[in-house]
Amino acid sequence: MKNEAITSRDVDFAKWYTDVVRAAKLADYTSVKGCIAIEPNGYAIWEKIQAIMDAKFKELGHVNVQMPFLIPESLFNQEKELIEGFAPELLWATEAGSKKLEERCAIRSTSETLFCDYYKKHIRSYKDLPKLYNQWCNVFRYEKETRPFLRSREFLWQEGHTVHATAEEAERETKQMMEVYRWFNHEILAIPSITGKKTEKEKFAGAEYTITNEDLMYNGVCLQDGTSHYFGQKFSKAYDVKFTNKDNKEEYAYYTTWGKTTRAIAAIIMVHADDYGLVLPPRIAPKQVVIIPIGQDERVNELCNRYKEELTQNGVDCYIDNSDKSPGFKFAEAEVNGIPIRIEVGARDLEKNIITIARRDTREKMTIDLSTDVILYTKGLLEIIQKDMYERAVERRNKLTFEAHNLDDMEKILNTQPGFIHGMWCGDEACENKIKEIKGCKSRCIVEDGKRIDDKCVCCGKEAKYHVIWGIQY
Amino acid sequence: MKNEAITSRDVDFAKWYTDVVRAAKLADYTSVKGCIAIEPNGYAIWEKIQAIMDAKFKELGHVNVQMPFLIPESLFNQEKELIEGFAPELLWATEAGSKKLEERCAIRSTSETLFCDYYKKHIRSYKDLPKLYNQWCNVFRYEKETRPFLRSREFLWQEGHTVHATAEEAERETKQMMEVYRWFNHEILAIPSITGKKTEKEKFAGAEYTITNEDLMYNGVCLQDGTSHYFGQKFSKAYDVKFTNKDNKEEYAYYTTWGKTTRAIAAIIMVHADDYGLVLPPRIAPKQVVIIPIGQDERVNELCNRYKEELTQNGVDCYIDNSDKSPGFKFAEAEVNGIPIRIEVGARDLEKNIITIARRDTREKMTIDLSTDVILYTKGLLEIIQKDMYERAVERRNKLTFEAHNLDDMEKILNTQPGFIHGMWCGDEACENKIKEIKGCKSRCIVEDGKRIDDKCVCCGKEAKYHVIWGIQY
Repeated sequence: MKNEAITSRDVDFAKWYTDVVRAAKLADYTSVKGCIAIEPNGYAIWEKIQAIMDAKFKELGHVNVQMPFLIPESLFNQEKELIEGFAPELLWATEAGSKKLEERCAIRSTSETLFCDYYKKHIRSYKDLPKLYNQWCNVFRYEKETRPFLRSREFLWQEGHTVHATAEEAERETKQMMEVYRWFNHEILAIPSITGKKTEKEKFAGAEYTITNEDLMYNGVCLQDGTSHYFGQKFSKAYDVKFTNKDNKEEYAYYTTWGKTTRAIAAIIMVHADDYGLVLPPRIAPKQVVIIPIGQDERVNELCNRYKEELTQNGVDCYIDNSDKSPGFKFAEAEVNGIPIRIEVGARDLEKNIITIARRDTREKMTIDLSTDVILYTKGLLEIIQKDMYERAVERRNKLTFEAHNLDDMEKILNTQPGFIHGMWCGDEACENKIKEIKGCKSRCIVEDGKRIDDKCVCCGKEAKYHVIWGIQY
Repeated sequence: MKNEAITSRDVDFAKWYTDVVRAAKLADYTSVKGCIAIEPNGYAIWEKIQAIMDAKFKELGHVNVQMPFLIPESLFNQEKELIEGFAPELLWATEAGSKKLEERCAIRSTSETLFCDYYKKHIRSYKDLPKLYNQWCNVFRYEKETRPFLRSREFLWQEGHTVHATAEEAERETKQMMEVYRWFNHEILAIPSITGKKTEKEKFAGAEYTITNEDLMYNGVCLQDGTSHYFGQKFSKAYDVKFTNKDNKEEYAYYTTWGKTTRAIAAIIMVHADDYGLVLPPRIAPKQVVIIPIGQDERVNELCNRYKEELTQNGVDCYIDNSDKSPGFKFAEAEVNGIPIRIEVGARDLEKNIITIARRDTREKMTIDLSTDVILYTKGLLEIIQKDMYERAVERRNKLTFEAHNLDDMEKILNTQPGFIHGMWCGDEACENKIKEIKGCKSRCIVEDGKRIDDKCVCCGKEAKYHVIWGIQY
């Protein structure tokens, strides 16, 4: 049953996306321009993202804190590149009660200033290092065009801010946290991201370098989904974060930050969802299995309850849909919400000693004999779905991965079917700017595996220094 | 070993409080006026508060969402009492980038407006009800005098916002959520709160009535710590939240909200902490047990590791302090941080087949024979500490609970040793105002057990309608 509320993905991708967001009740627009209400179905996904990532952060020694959400203007101004990078997007609080504030305050768009200001006060000696702090919070960027989860003025994220006694240790942290994001996308979200350094032009304002996690959407558009920044001593110098090192000398601390946002929910949708609604990879699905009783029957209810209890005991998140809606309505609802597995228990089926299991990703329905170990079967199927979803995403990504050797290639690809475009680059920003003229195509990241697909820059034809992946971005 | 950094509680309570906050590294002041940085030790307590309360909310059918943190002025203005109640404390965002906003937006000080605006759009029929939404977020109130956790311009909280098809159901929700807060304070925080309705003067702006949870601090000052509000149809009318009821008639929905904040951390400190630092009730302690090895010794390390492993397996949050600090320093640190139990494993003790266990609340040290089941002993001791802390808090509360029959009594009590003051009231706001002239004493809540301690109003001597608890508040 095709969902009437959802435009076909191949007809109008942008409309399809917002239709899925609404039909799966993930988020809705509000009376606040550019800001969304994250609804229960959407927030439950974010809670699961938080739980899994937070456990990993803590396993690696990080602790959570909470800094203020206001940044006095004078504090922001201490780091020029940061203020320049963020100024156009900053929202300012200027009045309280009926009075003007003595100094206006920016609503945090990122919290480097506040963390540095805190560290300045609390770090004296190398013995105080490293500090491995993270915070889960909301941030605000005054974007012009917005779309739920993808680009919203207010969004939720985690921002890690760590300080170290040596450059080596800080760089290790920068890489390690990108590895966490990579692991999370591949293993949990079933999204085969690629990672690499951003070019100078595309790096975070004020960072020495930025490593990025780039996803490829179903339509071939790229999405930056998790970044890790190495700042060296730059911010420490701007904010005076010093410590006494082992040689008893004063030194500026080495600083890293890394963040991942509710945008991950947009990635899940645009990689996995289909014309029937959301499709959730089992490991991130707040509810992995729905059990639907068909017909009022004691044996049906008994079996539903037994499955629910045993699946729960086995660590599977599941629920029985006992509402007074029709079975057809319940099937459709579970489908549009992306629940990975649906177990249908019907009185007539039971007479034949069978139940029906449907997987959301392929929409296959399977008839299972009651002599089967349903719990084991379901657990196994969840693993299979996770693996299959990942493999289909890899296949799609590979299909939409291209090579360009000159501007003509580039143009042809971008005008036909965009994707990840491998192309060599001389390192000159002028070439990046020229390529950007073709449908806004930007460098996504620099490939660091040493493999070269050509000797010449895809744009100017001069000697190539970097192997870059290019693409159109959200 | 008295903590040098902490002023004595009986010498200067206010100074003692902030000293404990700093010495236990719970929070610090920032460059942002009236806003604090919640440090790892403080945030870990908040995470545990969140985990326990969130699980209880969900058990009762609530789900989490996230509304925007900005409220357009026109939206706020729809409910007059709300804007009047909150106007002096509102922070306004008026500029973005380099431009003035078309309409200024308040930073949320509470989110009734946004939830009602959402519900208005999403509720059509009684079948859509109830909606049991909650959000965990930050809010801002432009307070003049601030103190970490107690009264901070920005603070963290949860705010439940529920809508129902009948008044009965909504009132049941209001009472149920207050029961949750009461349970949480008594059972988890070991704080013997009292609950009851607020008077008309003290209720939440715009509510039909407010039920409150009131704690008594060590110094006899009262702290409002969790409130639950019943709005009837008032806000629904202001924000046009209608539904079609079972009789197919249009009706305004019944609305409740309830909230608890990071102020709970202030309550923990001011009820339980002492001159040696923080004292955490075991059920809210992020780390319940610290194991401290004394001397470099294989057997010491082996035993420490075994205890840690077995305690963890038994659900006890514990850690080994393996840092290169001296044992004395480690003891002091665990003490100031309020870790409920400290296990000391020393080489010399082991020769005598003993270890030492210290409880933080009483600072008693016990020598335990190695033949004892240390795990069982520790688990039992955690329960005992929880119970003892609660009982001592009850004792203190009872000691500071007084009766006043006239203004003289009231004045004498407030000038000698404030506390919970039972006193009858005629119901006239003029009397409340007159009592407030004595050291700012306010009605805390109306006692609803039917017991009357007098027939006459404590202030005017006229016939008393209500049995009220009065007190000085934070």
